[in-house]
Amino acid sequence: MNEKKRRIDVALGRAPADLAIVNARLVNVYTGEILDNQSVCTCNAHIACMGQDVGHAIGETTQVIDAQGATLIPGLIDGHTHLAWLFTADAFLKYAARGGTTTIITETLEVYPVAGVAGVLDFMASFKNQPIKFFGTAPPMVSVSQAANGIDTDDLETLLGQDDIIGLGESYWQSVIQNPDIYLPIFEKTLAHGKVLEGHSAGARGSKLQAYAGCEISSCHEPIKAEEVLERLRLGIYVMIREGSIRRDLAQIAAIKDMNIDTRRLILTTDGITPKDLMEMGYMEYLVQKAIDCGFDPVVAIQMATLNVAEHFGLDDRIGGIAPGKLADMVLIPDPTTIDARCVVSNGRVIAQDGQLDVSPRRHVFASASLNSIHLDKPALASDFSIAYTGTGQTASVRVIEMVTDLVTREVTMNLPVSDRQIKLDTDNDLIKVAAMDRTKFPGKTFTGLIKGFGMHAGAIASSAAWDTTCIIVVGADENDMALCVNRIRDLNGGAVVCRDGEVMAELPLPIFGLMTDLSIEQLDEKIDIIKQGAKDIGVSFPDPLLTIVTLTGAAIPYFRICEEGLVNLKDGKTKALQS
Amino acid sequence: MNEKKRRIDVALGRAPADLAIVNARLVNVYTGEILDNQSVCTCNAHIACMGQDVGHAIGETTQVIDAQGATLIPGLIDGHTHLAWLFTADAFLKYAARGGTTTIITETLEVYPVAGVAGVLDFMASFKNQPIKFFGTAPPMVSVSQAANGIDTDDLETLLGQDDIIGLGESYWQSVIQNPDIYLPIFEKTLAHGKVLEGHSAGARGSKLQAYAGCEISSCHEPIKAEEVLERLRLGIYVMIREGSIRRDLAQIAAIKDMNIDTRRLILTTDGITPKDLMEMGYMEYLVQKAIDCGFDPVVAIQMATLNVAEHFGLDDRIGGIAPGKLADMVLIPDPTTIDARCVVSNGRVIAQDGQLDVSPRRHVFASASLNSIHLDKPALASDFSIAYTGTGQTASVRVIEMVTDLVTREVTMNLPVSDRQIKLDTDNDLIKVAAMDRTKFPGKTFTGLIKGFGMHAGAIASSAAWDTTCIIVVGADENDMALCVNRIRDLNGGAVVCRDGEVMAELPLPIFGLMTDLSIEQLDEKIDIIKQGAKDIGVSFPDPLLTIVTLTGAAIPYFRICEEGLVNLKDGKTKALQS
Repeated sequence: MNEKKRRIDVALGRAPADLAIVNARLVNVYTGEILDNQSVCTCNAHIACMGQDVGHAIGETTQVIDAQGATLIPGLIDGHTHLAWLFTADAFLKYAARGGTTTIITETLEVYPVAGVAGVLDFMASFKNQPIKFFGTAPPMVSVSQAANGIDTDDLETLLGQDDIIGLGESYWQSVIQNPDIYLPIFEKTLAHGKVLEGHSAGARGSKLQAYAGCEISSCHEPIKAEEVLERLRLGIYVMIREGSIRRDLAQIAAIKDMNIDTRRLILTTDGITPKDLMEMGYMEYLVQKAIDCGFDPVVAIQMATLNVAEHFGLDDRIGGIAPGKLADMVLIPDPTTIDARCVVSNGRVIAQDGQLDVSPRRHVFASASLNSIHLDKPALASDFSIAYTGTGQTASVRVIEMVTDLVTREVTMNLPVSDRQIKLDTDNDLIKVAAMDRTKFPGKTFTGLIKGFGMHAGAIASSAAWDTTCIIVVGADENDMALCVNRIRDLNGGAVVCRDGEVMAELPLPIFGLMTDLSIEQLDEKIDIIKQGAKDIGVSFPDPLLTIVTLTGAAIPYFRICEEGLVNLKDGKTKALQS
Repeated sequence: MNEKKRRIDVALGRAPADLAIVNARLVNVYTGEILDNQSVCTCNAHIACMGQDVGHAIGETTQVIDAQGATLIPGLIDGHTHLAWLFTADAFLKYAARGGTTTIITETLEVYPVAGVAGVLDFMASFKNQPIKFFGTAPPMVSVSQAANGIDTDDLETLLGQDDIIGLGESYWQSVIQNPDIYLPIFEKTLAHGKVLEGHSAGARGSKLQAYAGCEISSCHEPIKAEEVLERLRLGIYVMIREGSIRRDLAQIAAIKDMNIDTRRLILTTDGITPKDLMEMGYMEYLVQKAIDCGFDPVVAIQMATLNVAEHFGLDDRIGGIAPGKLADMVLIPDPTTIDARCVVSNGRVIAQDGQLDVSPRRHVFASASLNSIHLDKPALASDFSIAYTGTGQTASVRVIEMVTDLVTREVTMNLPVSDRQIKLDTDNDLIKVAAMDRTKFPGKTFTGLIKGFGMHAGAIASSAAWDTTCIIVVGADENDMALCVNRIRDLNGGAVVCRDGEVMAELPLPIFGLMTDLSIEQLDEKIDIIKQGAKDIGVSFPDPLLTIVTLTGAAIPYFRICEEGLVNLKDGKTKALQS
């Protein structure tokens, strides 16, 4: 209130601005214009006035930055990412904020199944009082596990009541269409709070996409071709063009720029970024630059990472553009086609200059429960991963997960020999074991299956992160090493581990929710490289073996998945036994 | 919930659509495209699916409309109007809905001062269960009367808690800047509810406009030139181009179309329409047609009355475009440049065809309090309008309202003769009396002043509507006729009256809040003509004399105004005595 009164005073020249950026070109994302000789004055965290003449608002106490003709754009926004994976906010911010990103919207779906609503609140608390703004989405909990499916009603209500929870996170389309009784009430509650439904419609088209859109989903970050983008835009869906570590779709999608369409509902997003990409490429500034390099009009490219995102989330009253009353989030770049931050202003404060963060992100102290999320009361045994044959024949007809790519799998049925009344792995035929062991709801509850095409000839690899479930995921060519992996994770209170011949070969501690480390980005990157090398040594040559294993339980990527309850083909979503 | 499940079934071809419009061109306001061979299917009130092939969704029970190549556009939206003036919803809808308008957002500021929050709720109740959708804005109560200034906190909370109250109504900029202590808390509360602040920045520019924008105002419907539009758009403000009975700004503003700017924040609005204009010109369809005729791209013109408005109010999850999950509000027109509704669908139901409304709007039964809003416990006397001279001289220095146009006034000071210790009117010099008599808070409290340039040589005219106040406004060349006007209004429980020589010459009963009639649009139009003729007969030749007198108390139009407390110059907002 007093701040707003002072803002009026600054605009009217009755009080001095706190900060003035003068002599800039300004990209006005509202009109799409590039305006010369512009200045912007702030009052505390907000913009008070702007234009060619703001001299009346500059006083002796005003910090004046002469842009010398450089270009001022709004702070960049990442509308969809996953920050509950690997690094904490303070480590991340060192690299994420220096390039001009001032707002980030993150999913929380990794935290909820393993740490509940208290965990999500602790996770979101780690983003408060940081140099830039963070928002989150409540997890719908689309899971291949029936026990984990659907967020609890009270928990949802609690999360939707938080100001920094601005929507419901991605709800994978197939599960929504298959289980409307679970997800439509969750959607209703979210819409009743005036918050948006983030979508995930990978591969959907035609009538299935429309059935999903009809559930009032308002975004999708999964299109990989311009035609898929166009189909979604025509349905009124905000399309987030993904250019991050999990996929890079911008170059392919850029053809949309030649389709002569209204671009107001196009958004750029990372969907998550690895430490290495973050250090080497940068963050949202890299995406905007790439969009320009792919031929997007520079103003449109900037709108895709500012105003359009803000409008989608209903945050454009606060962020997304440079105007009086908005938060003073601004980036000085050399010119509108060169997204290279010389100065980053967030909430009215200069936080970075010439690629260096000038402020110290806050290190959050996570709650004890968040640091003790591996609830296994006894060590795992090799026998936990044996597969008993329940039939009477010499061979068993068995459902097997087959790797199609490093992330996509399919269901195959194989006839396998039975020995000792067990179904055994067969490394000669690249057929090894995969197990999901619950670490949260029914600790120790384990389902073990078989997986083909993994390349592993010895040892095991495991992770306490296992997307969309409450599990530890472990893949192994040796049951003793599988147990060793799990037990090392148990000792670490979370982590990723590679074992071989009874020894731990590589490990990455992830003590926060079993998902995140407190290491720096540089240290983390080294650890990930060690895990990769460890995986390679046992025959696993996927580009990101950690991502490959955590995705084995995921409900988002086709087709054949595992959880503590059994196997699930996403085509019908039903839980299946190993033996068919 | 069950409806949404059926919507999924319709999209997937598992259940028949209720309505299918086939073989249409479709204006897709999201992408800005015009697409051929399109069909749209509905499920109850919503759209279920659309596209070139929807055959799977059409069953035996589906009502099929063959568009035969006609063009389908979203239902039109009027984002700013005043429906608490003259006609009721049911009378209005006969003309308003047939042309393709399916959503209207109205101010409520006329009702609140004279009928309180209960009156506003009754007013809003009159729009429920109608063939089209209505939303309202809560009144900030910017008034020249200190007693009426600022909505009560509890009342505001009650109104903001209503689903159909989607923002705070127009807050005139000068008063906001002058009285931040009154209005900023009201703004805060509205923003905390996630609702928008409607603006009114007539004539503001530069630092004053920016000070106002900094209060987080998000729209303005007052620009009259393209340059004013551009200045506001650059500040992130949604600009409503007004083309209605009070002003017609579209032709002048149309130059904005050649300024090569992003038009997403441009909106078309009426700001109110008279019965005659409504009958003769139509409603929002007239505005879109005129925009096209003024050279706007047809798709942009349609976006200005659909998607852009919906996005401004955060209603685009429901309305503003044709897509699965949105309400089925659609209009069939001959082609994209001819806004002539052949068929209007609202909430999935055909409500009008070929210019005829097919449904009967509901006639609302107003509460007894709403019909008894003139709280004068005794008749007025001529002496209520005498002006006692408090000084000792032969002449008095007196502040006088001078008419500049039919709506704009200015403050002049005149030396007037004193006779019988009174200051008297002087019709020979076109100097007559104007009085504001409270009918609500302090019934009978009256302030009488002088007005110049009205042209009245006999009689009096009065109205129980007097903008932004709790008053009856009366202008007269004869104090007996002034009293007679007030007493006739009292007998009618509200109305507009012209009297002369002790006789009622013309009257329009306005029994609902003293603001609205239950007459049909046609009957009302006749009555207004009779009032006009009556005013003319006593010398008043303003184009809309009723509008002229109700504006005399208004806080929106410059400069010199009257209320029961005294005279107010909007330049400083301070209450002044008659004698200077």
